[in-house]
Amino acid sequence: MEKRYLEIDEWKIVEKEWNPDNHMKSESIFSIGNGRMGQRANFEENYSGKTLQGSYVAGVYYPDKTKVGWWKNGYPEYFAKVLNSVNWIGMDVKVEGESLDLNTCKVSEFTRELDMQHGLLTRSFEAEFSTGKRIRVEAQRFLSLVADEVGAISYSITPLNFVGTITVVPYLDFDVENHDANWEEKFWAPVEEKVAAQKGTVTAKTKKLDFHVSAAMRFEVYEGGNHITLYPETEKREKFVSNTVDLKVEQGKTYTIYKYAGITSSMNYAVATLSTTADERASTAMRRGYSTLLEEHKNAWLEKWSTADIVIDGDPAAQQAIRFNIFHLFQTFTGVDPRLNIGPKGFTGEKYGGSTYWDTEAYCLPFYLSTTGPEVARNLLIYRYKHLNKAIENAQKLGFTNGAALYPMVTMNGEECHNEWEITFEEIHRNGAIAYAIYNYVRQTLDREYLQEYGFEVLLGISRFWAQRVNWSEAKGKFVMLGVTGPNEYENNINNNFYTNKMAIWTMGYTLEVIEYLKANHADKYEALVAKTNFDESTETAHWSNVIEKIELPFDEKREVYLQQDGFLDKELRSADSLDDSERPINQHWSWDRILRSCFIKQADVLQGLYFFEHEYDLDTLKRNFDFYEPMTVHESSLSPCVHVILASRIGYGEKAYELYLRTSRLDIDDYNREVHEGLHITSMAGTWMSVVQGFGGMKIVDEKLHFEPLLPEGWNSLNFTIRWRDAVLKVTIDGDNFSVENVSEASAEFYFKNEAHTISANSSTSIALSA
Amino acid sequence: MEKRYLEIDEWKIVEKEWNPDNHMKSESIFSIGNGRMGQRANFEENYSGKTLQGSYVAGVYYPDKTKVGWWKNGYPEYFAKVLNSVNWIGMDVKVEGESLDLNTCKVSEFTRELDMQHGLLTRSFEAEFSTGKRIRVEAQRFLSLVADEVGAISYSITPLNFVGTITVVPYLDFDVENHDANWEEKFWAPVEEKVAAQKGTVTAKTKKLDFHVSAAMRFEVYEGGNHITLYPETEKREKFVSNTVDLKVEQGKTYTIYKYAGITSSMNYAVATLSTTADERASTAMRRGYSTLLEEHKNAWLEKWSTADIVIDGDPAAQQAIRFNIFHLFQTFTGVDPRLNIGPKGFTGEKYGGSTYWDTEAYCLPFYLSTTGPEVARNLLIYRYKHLNKAIENAQKLGFTNGAALYPMVTMNGEECHNEWEITFEEIHRNGAIAYAIYNYVRQTLDREYLQEYGFEVLLGISRFWAQRVNWSEAKGKFVMLGVTGPNEYENNINNNFYTNKMAIWTMGYTLEVIEYLKANHADKYEALVAKTNFDESTETAHWSNVIEKIELPFDEKREVYLQQDGFLDKELRSADSLDDSERPINQHWSWDRILRSCFIKQADVLQGLYFFEHEYDLDTLKRNFDFYEPMTVHESSLSPCVHVILASRIGYGEKAYELYLRTSRLDIDDYNREVHEGLHITSMAGTWMSVVQGFGGMKIVDEKLHFEPLLPEGWNSLNFTIRWRDAVLKVTIDGDNFSVENVSEASAEFYFKNEAHTISANSSTSIALSA
Repeated sequence: MEKRYLEIDEWKIVEKEWNPDNHMKSESIFSIGNGRMGQRANFEENYSGKTLQGSYVAGVYYPDKTKVGWWKNGYPEYFAKVLNSVNWIGMDVKVEGESLDLNTCKVSEFTRELDMQHGLLTRSFEAEFSTGKRIRVEAQRFLSLVADEVGAISYSITPLNFVGTITVVPYLDFDVENHDANWEEKFWAPVEEKVAAQKGTVTAKTKKLDFHVSAAMRFEVYEGGNHITLYPETEKREKFVSNTVDLKVEQGKTYTIYKYAGITSSMNYAVATLSTTADERASTAMRRGYSTLLEEHKNAWLEKWSTADIVIDGDPAAQQAIRFNIFHLFQTFTGVDPRLNIGPKGFTGEKYGGSTYWDTEAYCLPFYLSTTGPEVARNLLIYRYKHLNKAIENAQKLGFTNGAALYPMVTMNGEECHNEWEITFEEIHRNGAIAYAIYNYVRQTLDREYLQEYGFEVLLGISRFWAQRVNWSEAKGKFVMLGVTGPNEYENNINNNFYTNKMAIWTMGYTLEVIEYLKANHADKYEALVAKTNFDESTETAHWSNVIEKIELPFDEKREVYLQQDGFLDKELRSADSLDDSERPINQHWSWDRILRSCFIKQADVLQGLYFFEHEYDLDTLKRNFDFYEPMTVHESSLSPCVHVILASRIGYGEKAYELYLRTSRLDIDDYNREVHEGLHITSMAGTWMSVVQGFGGMKIVDEKLHFEPLLPEGWNSLNFTIRWRDAVLKVTIDGDNFSVENVSEASAEFYFKNEAHTISANSSTSIALSA
Repeated sequence: MEKRYLEIDEWKIVEKEWNPDNHMKSESIFSIGNGRMGQRANFEENYSGKTLQGSYVAGVYYPDKTKVGWWKNGYPEYFAKVLNSVNWIGMDVKVEGESLDLNTCKVSEFTRELDMQHGLLTRSFEAEFSTGKRIRVEAQRFLSLVADEVGAISYSITPLNFVGTITVVPYLDFDVENHDANWEEKFWAPVEEKVAAQKGTVTAKTKKLDFHVSAAMRFEVYEGGNHITLYPETEKREKFVSNTVDLKVEQGKTYTIYKYAGITSSMNYAVATLSTTADERASTAMRRGYSTLLEEHKNAWLEKWSTADIVIDGDPAAQQAIRFNIFHLFQTFTGVDPRLNIGPKGFTGEKYGGSTYWDTEAYCLPFYLSTTGPEVARNLLIYRYKHLNKAIENAQKLGFTNGAALYPMVTMNGEECHNEWEITFEEIHRNGAIAYAIYNYVRQTLDREYLQEYGFEVLLGISRFWAQRVNWSEAKGKFVMLGVTGPNEYENNINNNFYTNKMAIWTMGYTLEVIEYLKANHADKYEALVAKTNFDESTETAHWSNVIEKIELPFDEKREVYLQQDGFLDKELRSADSLDDSERPINQHWSWDRILRSCFIKQADVLQGLYFFEHEYDLDTLKRNFDFYEPMTVHESSLSPCVHVILASRIGYGEKAYELYLRTSRLDIDDYNREVHEGLHITSMAGTWMSVVQGFGGMKIVDEKLHFEPLLPEGWNSLNFTIRWRDAVLKVTIDGDNFSVENVSEASAEFYFKNEAHTISANSSTSIALSA
């Protein structure tokens, strides 16, 4: 962990001192977004220091030519890159011709603040120029949660010790680059620039795929409450427009530039109307005014929090962290558009590329399922349904037939982007998470309609894949699954990964159940689906049943633990504690072969399986496996600690659970992995939410019923979280003595506390003694 | 196999028709070299069609920045690229201002001929220009085997139907590129250009590592026997010099340009003297004259053939092929310089990079051991001795200690170049081949001095590596070696590869023997070596003995075959014959994961081990393993068939042996793999030699004695090959009836025919009936 430079505050992230070394980290941490677009906390004015400029429009990407050392047959040609888009915040400032640049000016009274309750980024500072002239700046901006194609900036300048001219240059600029580009190309081609006094639009398109994006700006300037009439000089060039405004300023007075941007993309509009639509968004925003926009934006945020907040009493650092995580999840994905998904870095950086990993199904879905309406999770499922044909094509490329589907490891449009064989071709457990997500959604929402509309086809494609992916081993007299990479990516090309095999047979079993359900309840629809998918039910399901019965699930009789894979016990078994500090993280100090043949585990693997199917195993089994695997786990994936927190809570390892919780929840704020400058770990944030609600809060779903088995960390006075449970909204509070539930909705709900059933009617509360 | 376009001729490769589609293939196949440098069969005159220009200076390379998709800790920063160097053959020709360019002129009477007996490339053709003017050209060149820094060209032009001006522009050009460059850079920086009438020099250096190379040219022109006085225009620019000569020509007369090039590198000379030395080489060559140089060059080739030729009676295609292979091996490596080695493409292309793979020890060494003086093989061993410290550093990077050495998979200077973890870090069996080569050398030459001088240190480093690379498996009660890639690269990250484990314990066992020998015969030297290497003999050797005793060597009791690796029998076992033609080669049609989990074998793996240690196994064991593995072998490595030919010959599978022999011997001439345009498979050529001599000829060494157990392919009237055996030179002839040996040396020799001892005195012959 780096030295902490941010203040602890329950609702805010606060930076109190200007230190250029922290700037790129803060650019990530203070990012804002509204699900439609996102913006790193770059400065509006010119900054010549180290920065990672990042402005992202959801769904717009670039198919960057794959870079590999040694090409393997079947690799994707392109890697979909999250695409740095138009710089719409830009506003250069000059005082008597000298540029305001925090890298060259003398800076004091610097504050940067992210108000997570209201989705607002504020920054203020005083800057002294080489001439001794000083100004105070207060800049605020937000991306409207209501008008989600609009960004608004309020930028106030006060000359502190002079009278004279301040020049401001609001601009739009598409001539941007991606740091993470494979071949150092720029990805945008110019289309059109228009500029006039106090307004401008720029349209550009991606050099491949022809995504068009238009940005429009409008701006006005006030001194106090007085509107100032401007006579700007306009400029345009390829991919760029600007206005240059000279303000005659008086000492001590405050001049505020309100800049409104409208950003539209060809994802949503015909190219011909893109730029006028963007301009309309910007002009409407200006007409309605900054404070009106801000007010409705704030209210929208409060509304989000009302069904999603978590309150931790007695641990402000933990409190701040959990809100930070929830805040960024909501900024990244609002669930209104089934073409969008949750990238590993959201709108906070460009690394990794692609927007969709198995993280979405395995880690993010539970968060959205419990904190938003069911349509949000449903849209995440439909996203995969829409990609089913691509998944079938992908499997065909790899030699599978008959509608077998292999979803990609990383994707933007359904096509595989990843270019490492051990991941792309072998980390196939991702398919299982996509099936599990359907099950998870249905058991929580009871939306069984989903199965006939979309779910069955996806489950069938995945089951078919598993059925073809196993082979019969004469030697073992079992079905085996050879050559996979499990969730623990510190093993490659292993045989009979417990987790993958378990997910495979579980998928086939669940699909069989769904088939029975459909035959019983939607016989006609089922007939149609059978025809559509050429499903030879009797033959195919007979094979599935055979595989389910005869699959190899490696198990050590002596220790009574599941084995991560064939031959796991041939390794030298060591505790991660025995590693020297100088060797950690091992992925930065050990060669890959050494990591592979070691016992060390990157992230939950067997334990991930036990987490998903907790109800199938008794506590002793969980405990034996946890005791065996956790000590060997180095948690070098941000997705690892959360599952361990949940299982540790379940088996009563409070201290271990809390230690791992801190690691996951403050991963980015405290920059544990020294990489936060590249962007935040968005998907792991959902894991943090799971740690609190499913771990400490002990929430789980068994047989479609809501259960709680809480374990409050020592030092926490109380934990309070809000979840949606079907039509109800429940505020759950755990303190030292009681488990209390307040139903703040109009629907009654049923839940189990320590396996005891309780019903809570609408708008009522109940409290149960923990000792009960 | 592509349609054959080359003539069958026992001593020549002949191309009789001009077809631009074949040109790049021919550029590879007709390459010439002299061990010090090499040159693809590019045209002297300008050619605007598809070509791969290639001129290589042995030992000069470029550390091209590694290209990978996902960086892994421990990867090398640089990949040593075989470096395309100065174009010294260049000679543009114009007829009345129109360029002679076989891509635009009308070409007839085209012949290209490689005289393998004399190391000579000849080309002739008639070209018609757009004006209807016609010339005849006859071009001949060689790289002197005697003056190995000299190349000579004789280029004759005869105007067939006109009187007028022919312009010739001999030049030197360093402004060349590598097609295989990772980042499309040029690798040469200019140093100096000098030009005068009928001469010029260019010096350039590599942009990294500062290898300097100078090229000098001299030229003169004759009409018939008459020297023509020239008044050339000279030109120089960065990395380029030329002379432009206008020749007033008469119809029917022949004008011959003799161009002599001297090429020197900073491998051998101080930079300050490079260019004068190069010029001296060129001017001496010109003074001595083309025919003198050619005569001594031809004689040197005849001398080489005298102890290395193979004569096959009754199968001209096989005859041509084996000479082609021997010819290219001698062109690539002459053994005079222990800094040089045998690159996979020799001097015929740039692909793969690096000059040294385990191919050298496993496949090439036997050829040089039997066809040249012992110093050639010794230099190949010393090459690795010189790299021992780098191998120790390499192992340290991967976490090994105490002088453990891991030789690189690919190298130019001892450092690892390869950037695929499954090869770089895991294909460690290469270490075993390096140890085996020492054993192989000593048993053939009886040069035991080598062990104390160099061999022991290398063996110790490798044994230490193996001793650390295994670990104790509690579960198996054995030592295991996890996470390796065997010779069969269609398996990655496997456990207990039979071949690797066998090589490991064999190395340790041989090192123990060598220690006993040194203690008994060179006690003082051994003391010094123990001190130098910090060798804790008792502890280290005790561990080795323990590992030798308790290593896992997977074996199937039912089939009584060794198993390629743990879990091999879990695969679906299929014969390669069951593959559809459209799926082959599988590496071009199947995704990598599918290849990995299939049973298909790229090249001999278990069988490679049985080949190396043939004397430890009875014929039934060889047969059982051959019968099990060969049907699953797809031979998609050029190094695969040869080992199978040898084993098939041993167990009496004559037809199978001959089928695989054809595949290996005419691999390049007939372009089986459709990649010959990239260069030849030089190291596999040595495997072809092994096929004939060790396979059909049945030569093997057992307990340091020479044995023969021949098996003549049906259709061959006789097979005759020459080998050096210690001080003797033996010409062995096998025909339908007899096995005959002629000793053409002054030393007597002992050999075993079908385990029966025979002695053959100097300059005598013996003949044994095969039925005996």
